[in-house]
Amino acid sequence: MPYVNIKITREGVTAEQKARLIQGATQLLVDVLGKNPQTTVVVIDEVDTDNWGIGGEPVTLRRARGS
Amino acid sequence: MPYVNIKITREGVTAEQKARLIQGATQLLVDVLGKNPQTTVVVIDEVDTDNWGIGGEPVTLRRARGS
Amino acid sequence: MPYVNIKITREGVTAEQKARLIQGATQLLVDVLGKNPQTTVVVIDEVDTDNWGIGGEPVTLRRARGS
Amino acid sequence: MPYVNIKITREGVTAEQKARLIQGATQLLVDVLGKNPQTTVVVIDEVDTDNWGIGGEPVTLRRARGS
Amino acid sequence: MPYVNIKITREGVTAEQKARLIQGATQLLVDVLGKNPQTTVVVIDEVDTDNWGIGGEPVTLRRARGS
Amino acid sequence: MPYVNIKITREGVTAEQKARLIQGATQLLVDVLGKNPQTTVVVIDEVDTDNWGIGGEPVTLRRARGS
Repeated sequence: MPYVNIKITREGVTAEQKARLIQGATQLLVDVLGKNPQTTVVVIDEVDTDNWGIGGEPVTLRRARGS
Repeated sequence: MPYVNIKITREGVTAEQKARLIQGATQLLVDVLGKNPQTTVVVIDEVDTDNWGIGGEPVTLRRARGS
Repeated sequence: MPYVNIKITREGVTAEQKARLIQGATQLLVDVLGKNPQTTVVVIDEVDTDNWGIGGEPVTLRRARGS
Repeated sequence: MPYVNIKITREGVTAEQKARLIQGATQLLVDVLGKNPQTTVVVIDEVDTDNWGIGGEPVTLRRARGS
Repeated sequence: MPYVNIKITREGVTAEQKARLIQGATQLLVDVLGKNPQTTVVVIDEVDTDNWGIGGEPVTLRRARGS
Repeated sequence: MPYVNIKITREGVTAEQKARLIQGATQLLVDVLGKNPQTTVVVIDEVDTDNWGIGGEPVTLRRARGS
């Protein structure tokens, strides 16, 4: 019954990688808390780099500068 | 003033259905808690089936298997 | 499989009212989108009035002024 | 280390405006709480007007009526 | 830079278990996407069983019935 | 109509500081996007340091080590 939300920048994450994130997050809840995987929900949000900020500026600018 | 967030898979939900979700969620807060509908916000997030996991795997795979 | 999050101010909402919110939100997803209620999750967050702002000020202040 | 999420309707917000939101939200956490800007994350979600409801109806309808 | 939010019912999760959730979720992002752990944020929300619904009713009621 | 959510660790933030966060975030949306402050909602979540992770470990441990 847990709910896990993973937010990452939208930068070419593949369906196979998303499947691994879903599998891994679900297994983590099983391993640590004994949760039922059948009712564990994982939602992945991909966020445009213009819309994600860290250090006071968008990731788009940081990527352009190479940082 | 309540805030309601509804997350569903992106599978052809129509604008009319979204309007019904918004109307119904707002009315629920009015009926149960006497909230003011004019300041009740409802946000619907549609999530790609690759990005939504349950039972440890993406909905895309479950749909493909027919489960 | 939908996920609904309801955020309201913490002002004495009873367990019975929360149960009605959960029942109503779940039924809404069944009625409008034909979702399976058994995998529909509803999470209610109660937020202190100091921590909820509207119109640029905390609800605590608005309540104190009677607005 | 704070996390700020800004949800707005998707109505032509420019990359420059998003950068200003990120800069301003980060600075706010520095000014009020002395947080480290280098680990302050800001995520902007743009939501379609069909998916954003207030007053019990989608913003799309309110815009069409001119309200 | 990823952000992970884990929502679980408030039922006696220990600080050690929370540390394992944080460690595991961070490592998952490193393993699958090569993310930098130093800027990966994990937030755990513990939700009262009165406030978490599944199948149209609060977890409190389900626990009381033994389901 | 925007919705802003600020998540910070629970470490003695005062009501006056919260009021400044609410005022500042609301004004930011007014200044950058011309939003109406009367319908701008700000919600502050304070998260226990056991429940907030960065760099793969809880903030509680980092604070204890002085980092």
